[in-house]
Amino acid sequence: MSEAPPGQAVRSHVVRREAAGGWQGVPALPYAHEASRDDAPAVGGGLSASHAGPGGPPLAVTRWLLAGGPASACAFELRYFELGPGARTSHERHRHQHAVVVLRGRGEVLLGEQVHGLGPGDLVRIAPGEPHQFRNPAEEPFGFLCVVDADRDRPVRLDDDDAPSCGIEPG
Amino acid sequence: MSEAPPGQAVRSHVVRREAAGGWQGVPALPYAHEASRDDAPAVGGGLSASHAGPGGPPLAVTRWLLAGGPASACAFELRYFELGPGARTSHERHRHQHAVVVLRGRGEVLLGEQVHGLGPGDLVRIAPGEPHQFRNPAEEPFGFLCVVDADRDRPVRLDDDDAPSCGIEPG
Repeated sequence: MSEAPPGQAVRSHVVRREAAGGWQGVPALPYAHEASRDDAPAVGGGLSASHAGPGGPPLAVTRWLLAGGPASACAFELRYFELGPGARTSHERHRHQHAVVVLRGRGEVLLGEQVHGLGPGDLVRIAPGEPHQFRNPAEEPFGFLCVVDADRDRPVRLDDDDAPSCGIEPG
Repeated sequence: MSEAPPGQAVRSHVVRREAAGGWQGVPALPYAHEASRDDAPAVGGGLSASHAGPGGPPLAVTRWLLAGGPASACAFELRYFELGPGARTSHERHRHQHAVVVLRGRGEVLLGEQVHGLGPGDLVRIAPGEPHQFRNPAEEPFGFLCVVDADRDRPVRLDDDDAPSCGIEPG
C-alpha cells in the first residue's frame, strides 16, 4: 500500500484528501498559460496545496493529476482543478470530451454562449468542439474533477479579451 | 443544451445533482449480481434515485453511468456507486484499474487483505489484479465516483462467504 508516482497504480493505495485542499503526496502542477489573476504568484511544481506557501495568497488555479498520465497504462486521466475567487480557466475548444463533476464550492461554466451556474455534485458533459470556460465569481474556492481521454488533441484557445487565464490542459 | 442519452455528449449540457441523490434524468442501473442485502428489493432499470419508490426501502447499491458507455467515443467511463447502510460491492479482481473518489459519506475499501477507512474526497487507486471490495458499515449512504477504461476485462468474483453482494461492473 505504498505511495506510487502521480497517476500510477503500481500498487493499490488510498490517497487522503487534505483539509486544506489537495491530496496527501500529490503535487499541484504548473499550468500551460500565464497565471489567471494579475496578483497571483508564478506557479511552480511540487506545491502540496492551493496556496503558494504559509500565509501566501491563494493561487488562481491549481491542478492535480489524480490518476492516469504518461506513466500509466490507463486510457483516461482523472484531474482536479481548483479555482480561487475570481479565477477562470482558458476559453477554449478541442475535439476530445470532458466529463466534469463539481467537488467543492460554486462556480459557472460557459458552454457555447450560455452560462450555467454550478454547485457540488453537478455534472457537466462537454461535447467535441464546444467552446467552454470555467469561472469562479464566488468568494470561496471552486473545485471540480475532470476526466479526459489519455490520448487527446490539444485545445485551441479562444480568449477574446485581455483577461489572463489558465489552461485546463497541460502546456 | 438538450438532454443526451446516458454517458453521451452529443451536445454539451449540465446535469444537476439531485438533493435526494442521483442526477436529473440519469437512470439508476441494474446490477450484475443479486441484491447486496437480503431485505433489498429486486433492482430494475429506470430508477431516478436510490430508492425503489416513494416510501420504499433504499436499494443496497445503486449505480449511475455519468459519462462514456457504449454510445460514446470516450475511452473511459465515469460511474457513480452509492451503497446503502450495510451494503458492499463484490469482492473481485480484474486487470483494469479503478480510480475512485469518495463523494458522499463514509465507508471502507478492502485492498488485498487491508481495510482502509474512507471519507469525502479520499482517492483510491486500484492496481491491476488487486482484490478489492467497497463496504458501508455506517448508517448513512456511502457514494463514490469510479473511472475505468471503456475497453476492459470482466471481473473475477472472489466472494468467500455467503453474503450476497453487488458487482461494481455491469453484468
